Amino acid sequence: MRNWLLPEHIADILPATARQLESAKSAMLERFRTAGYELVMPPLVEYADSLLLEGDTALEMKTFKLDDPYSGKQLGLRADITPQVARIDAHLLATRTGVTRLCYAGSVVHSRAAGLTASREPLQVGAELYGYAGIEADREIIGLMLDTLAGVNVEGVRLDLGHAAIFRGLAVAAGLPAEVRAELFVAMQAKDAATVAMLTADTPEPYRSAFLALPELYGPVSVLEKARTRLPSLPEVELGLIQLKTLAAELAGSVELGIDLAELRGDLYHTGLMFAAYAPGWPDALARGGRYDNVGRRFGRARPATGFSLDLRDLLRVLPERGAAFGIRVDARHAVAAKERIDALRASGEVVVVDYLGESPEALYCDRQLAPAVDGWQVVPF
Amino acid sequence: MRNWLLPEHIADILPATARQLESAKSAMLERFRTAGYELVMPPLVEYADSLLLEGDTALEMKTFKLDDPYSGKQLGLRADITPQVARIDAHLLATRTGVTRLCYAGSVVHSRAAGLTASREPLQVGAELYGYAGIEADREIIGLMLDTLAGVNVEGVRLDLGHAAIFRGLAVAAGLPAEVRAELFVAMQAKDAATVAMLTADTPEPYRSAFLALPELYGPVSVLEKARTRLPSLPEVELGLIQLKTLAAELAGSVELGIDLAELRGDLYHTGLMFAAYAPGWPDALARGGRYDNVGRRFGRARPATGFSLDLRDLLRVLPERGAAFGIRVDARHAVAAKERIDALRASGEVVVVDYLGESPEALYCDRQLAPAVDGWQVVPF
Repeated sequence: MRNWLLPEHIADILPATARQLESAKSAMLERFRTAGYELVMPPLVEYADSLLLEGDTALEMKTFKLDDPYSGKQLGLRADITPQVARIDAHLLATRTGVTRLCYAGSVVHSRAAGLTASREPLQVGAELYGYAGIEADREIIGLMLDTLAGVNVEGVRLDLGHAAIFRGLAVAAGLPAEVRAELFVAMQAKDAATVAMLTADTPEPYRSAFLALPELYGPVSVLEKARTRLPSLPEVELGLIQLKTLAAELAGSVELGIDLAELRGDLYHTGLMFAAYAPGWPDALARGGRYDNVGRRFGRARPATGFSLDLRDLLRVLPERGAAFGIRVDARHAVAAKERIDALRASGEVVVVDYLGESPEALYCDRQLAPAVDGWQVVPF
Repeated sequence: MRNWLLPEHIADILPATARQLESAKSAMLERFRTAGYELVMPPLVEYADSLLLEGDTALEMKTFKLDDPYSGKQLGLRADITPQVARIDAHLLATRTGVTRLCYAGSVVHSRAAGLTASREPLQVGAELYGYAGIEADREIIGLMLDTLAGVNVEGVRLDLGHAAIFRGLAVAAGLPAEVRAELFVAMQAKDAATVAMLTADTPEPYRSAFLALPELYGPVSVLEKARTRLPSLPEVELGLIQLKTLAAELAGSVELGIDLAELRGDLYHTGLMFAAYAPGWPDALARGGRYDNVGRRFGRARPATGFSLDLRDLLRVLPERGAAFGIRVDARHAVAAKERIDALRASGEVVVVDYLGESPEALYCDRQLAPAVDGWQVVPF
């Protein structure tokens, strides 16, 4: 095997893309900062047990395991940053009892790719708000998510809203056993009506009809009215529908909105509002999030929590390409003498490339050059 | 075991430090960009064989291995980015036959820490120049390294210079077997005169005296004159001393200089000039590098190469702490009405924090707040 080959679903990010990615990341972190979100950088590797979320077997399945030569215990290579941030809020920042806003940007590694074209090394960027259960916090996170996408020039964004309490409330009221609930959850995500019908064959009414209705309850905001007539009036269902209606009313006009009451994907741990942003050019959600109260319980502190995350590698696929920036060539013989001028040009943001070999403008990516002039140095066409 | 515990030599980076680290990294990448260095982002995980350098067993020892579920082959979690960048220059950018400048910033993971206080997850930042063998390229890299440190306000930097060809030339001329050479290399690094004497007991003169002299040949630039009298006049020794003298003369006055002819640490693959930067407050080198021609040979293209790298986590230990930045509180009730003003403040770089709970200035890290005024919104003391 040739040693320059990369494993499947693993790729280098080469110069043109890497700069674009780095500047998108910086713009996002700056936005988070000015919105009061503090940056944390949890490690790539920690005890495997700390990296998982209760009941999230999908996360466990895609986490690479390593042996720690120090403790002999099993380490994991993180496949998600959210549990790490929950650990930080629950433990390291436990003296903060009010609202804590945290953000992060880092690579995660999946032992198995999420899909045929998916990378095994997503670059996960996200923000989380702990300590406030009100819908205003969800709205803040949604606003931040939309601003984040707009800030890197993603156009034509559509926002889908869902609510984890609706399915959960129905499942509890219908007395579904845990296994059936998990299977039904998967069938809902796939909008697989036949399997939903099969799994709920023995489920009493009005719950059976409700489960059968859920996969159809997606579309424009008017779906919420349809849901009110087709779903039983349980407290959790009511709460879910009211929160969705409130949020939809507040967001109306600012973004194209959709409702999807069966959209639960990968979110077994969510407890409330859920949201996903789509844009033309990429079939999957570009950013998603939701409320997952009590995520910190396994680390010793259960708190309200809502947040969103995105994969910057996916996002790059929908960003407009940036034109090549051209630099200024300086002949290696002049590099020392012109140092002051070169430093000033670079400080102003110009790229100044020292040419040792007498290369072409194309090879150097330069359209100008620094030439000696009577009174110092002059930038002239190359 | 409590699941919020972290493994040995692994740590979270918490808010105050994380922002400082992120902004230092951005400043470095911007400096690299304007000097014509193109950013690359190689993956965290690739085939283990691709991550190693010929003969560098220390690198192999500290590389975590993983099983690839796709290929069944062994993957490695990168412990160094340099071999990856060499792979990119040799293979992906093989159509470029002139000078290629590349830079990177990313985490690496060591299965075993390099020392008692070392992290197992250094944040490696570096720059490499391929395709030019002249000493001007080494000078460019040294200049970039010093500018990079100065750009993040590291003060009192001392630069140590060495040359790999001197030890190499002596070892070849003395006909040292490979094992002895490797052991001697380690003893040199430790300036362990007793072991050097033992290992060279059967080595003919003038080489034995030369090996015994090397560990003492460190100190101010005048050491170079001493070296000329104590080392045999082999072509490689001569070349090394001339290059060191040239560079020292050019750098004189701009930085405190030291020479260390036994300073070879971790650099079995270096072939020419070597350099390390030190600063008060940290015993180890803050940044180091050197010439390692032909590093890309195992990837199919041997080219001249010189570069440097640093661990941003180490560097943070010597950076002056930044004062806390204080933000502007906005009562959650006003968050929607004042949105335009909030957006404008944030765009100007101010941190504006939405307060849901009526928290204290200390809890919110705010010293001002946004208050309704007759003609809009006003920033007033909190």
